[in-house]
Amino acid sequence: MTYEDVTGAAGRIAGHVLRTPVLEISPGLFLKLEQLQHSGSFKARGAFNRILSAGRLPDSGVIAASGGNHGLAVAYAARALGVRAEIFVPEVTSPVKVAGLRALGAEIRQTGAIYAQAAQAAAERAASTGALQVHAYDQPEVIAGQGTTGLEIVAQTGGVDTVLVAVGGGGFIAGITVGTGALDAATSPAAPASEPGAGGRPVPRPVPRPVPRIVAVEPERIPTLHAALRAGGPVPVEVSGVAADALGATRLGETAYDICSRAGVRSLLVTDDAIVAARRALWQRHRVVAEHAGATAYAALLSGAYAPEPGERVVVVVCGSNTDPATLVTD
Amino acid sequence: MTYEDVTGAAGRIAGHVLRTPVLEISPGLFLKLEQLQHSGSFKARGAFNRILSAGRLPDSGVIAASGGNHGLAVAYAARALGVRAEIFVPEVTSPVKVAGLRALGAEIRQTGAIYAQAAQAAAERAASTGALQVHAYDQPEVIAGQGTTGLEIVAQTGGVDTVLVAVGGGGFIAGITVGTGALDAATSPAAPASEPGAGGRPVPRPVPRPVPRIVAVEPERIPTLHAALRAGGPVPVEVSGVAADALGATRLGETAYDICSRAGVRSLLVTDDAIVAARRALWQRHRVVAEHAGATAYAALLSGAYAPEPGERVVVVVCGSNTDPATLVTD
Repeated sequence: MTYEDVTGAAGRIAGHVLRTPVLEISPGLFLKLEQLQHSGSFKARGAFNRILSAGRLPDSGVIAASGGNHGLAVAYAARALGVRAEIFVPEVTSPVKVAGLRALGAEIRQTGAIYAQAAQAAAERAASTGALQVHAYDQPEVIAGQGTTGLEIVAQTGGVDTVLVAVGGGGFIAGITVGTGALDAATSPAAPASEPGAGGRPVPRPVPRPVPRIVAVEPERIPTLHAALRAGGPVPVEVSGVAADALGATRLGETAYDICSRAGVRSLLVTDDAIVAARRALWQRHRVVAEHAGATAYAALLSGAYAPEPGERVVVVVCGSNTDPATLVTD
Repeated sequence: MTYEDVTGAAGRIAGHVLRTPVLEISPGLFLKLEQLQHSGSFKARGAFNRILSAGRLPDSGVIAASGGNHGLAVAYAARALGVRAEIFVPEVTSPVKVAGLRALGAEIRQTGAIYAQAAQAAAERAASTGALQVHAYDQPEVIAGQGTTGLEIVAQTGGVDTVLVAVGGGGFIAGITVGTGALDAATSPAAPASEPGAGGRPVPRPVPRPVPRIVAVEPERIPTLHAALRAGGPVPVEVSGVAADALGATRLGETAYDICSRAGVRSLLVTDDAIVAARRALWQRHRVVAEHAGATAYAALLSGAYAPEPGERVVVVVCGSNTDPATLVTD
């Protein structure tokens, strides 16, 4: 997984996904409004990149398993590209998300108590029909697609010091780590200030933009990356709490672990109360509607779990809005 | 009221208001997300510019009359600048807006059935206390402040053909007409392609960006600009319908009439049903929360009242979000 995979994805999915805006809410503090993305979350980026990378599709189309947002994204992309979509969702999936899937024309199979069971059913089904599987987080094309968010963050802000992003299965944070250049910066030897040009004369390299450090924010009740970094690899975790319908992977993806651990990504934990307060503040202060998962990164800032240094430039990624807005003022 | 008044306002209010983003929802079609502005509407721009233009304020602070959004903006700006604010609102004002005003620390006087009666009470009170009046739409500093939205639209899109914007008292559309250059383009003789430089040598002028035409969108139950353009000047109109709490001025401002008529601004009318449908679509398709007034410009597009030509580049201004999000799915 390289930076070029992400720039390749950006070219492939351009015109199919939105370039979501950033909002500078105070000097040097940006919200990346990825909850405005088609299908209501960043997942559309990976879904389009996976499907468009596959070439000709079988008549059985595409198949996915999802706690909700990934399913919505695959259904959205399939409809946009004119292919059939079959989506396996666990029984805990919120009615808003199931209704959204139906409205997009997908065939829905509600199977199993948790994501892992729906995923297994989807894999078995794909094996029998030949449909293209679009994984929720652990496929290179999916991660590269999500990483296009990182390219935009760098371009839209002119470079920042820190990116705060929520983690479930890890595809989004892994993509952003590659797409912002944070993986290369952590793993490549420092580039020389100049390099030999024609005739051996040194040619000055362009001054690179600052490469951000990537900070993961996880609900303490779903610490997939936190547990993986402690254990030296992905391990199963308990899944519960307000953000479980979107961040409820039971373990981090292997590729995400590889990228995050090599890039030195840190993981902060936040409480469900902090997530609820952050979701409410995003609406009341900033008129941004987020689902609980979408407010998780902001919760680190609001709760003080992450405290920027004076002058530090920070992007908080708001990653999803598939929620009932009536609950913004009651939950 | 000149373009330089607007650029002057931009310098004055920078750091106090947000540069709200634009979202390109399809090629060449932009939403200007001004509902993300501090206080939940564009009104913060004019409020800050009026107060910051006044120099030293009396101890009695500032006073305003408002259907809601202007009051919220003045209260927000007064709190940010550390001055006292007294806000007169008509009795029809929504409970959400009254609660918002109280939370900002303003003293609230709920007076009169309609905006005009609250405005008269505010003027009488200002005469006795010496407080600085901040008018909802008909003061040059207020219009120049709102016009900074126009500067941003041009800069953020690289130029568009058309801007669709809702109208109440007309301060916002007047400011945008000046700030986008549409007034100058309509009223100045065409600039020469080059002008004399030092020693008489012609200096090429920079190629101007396209200047948009400004199109007003009004609820058919509050046609302040529409009626004024027909009558040859501002005239009283009946005020009712879903957007009355924010667009419910009973007549267009004199300055707004002057600017809009000289710039050749057209006015389109939309039904309340179209506004309700547009508000719902902004949420369901684009995850943008708008109040009814904030969805009025988009209603022209969604209903077909405004049909862009192929290739036409259009900005739809979403101007306010002071609404109960629970009503997004029920109204």
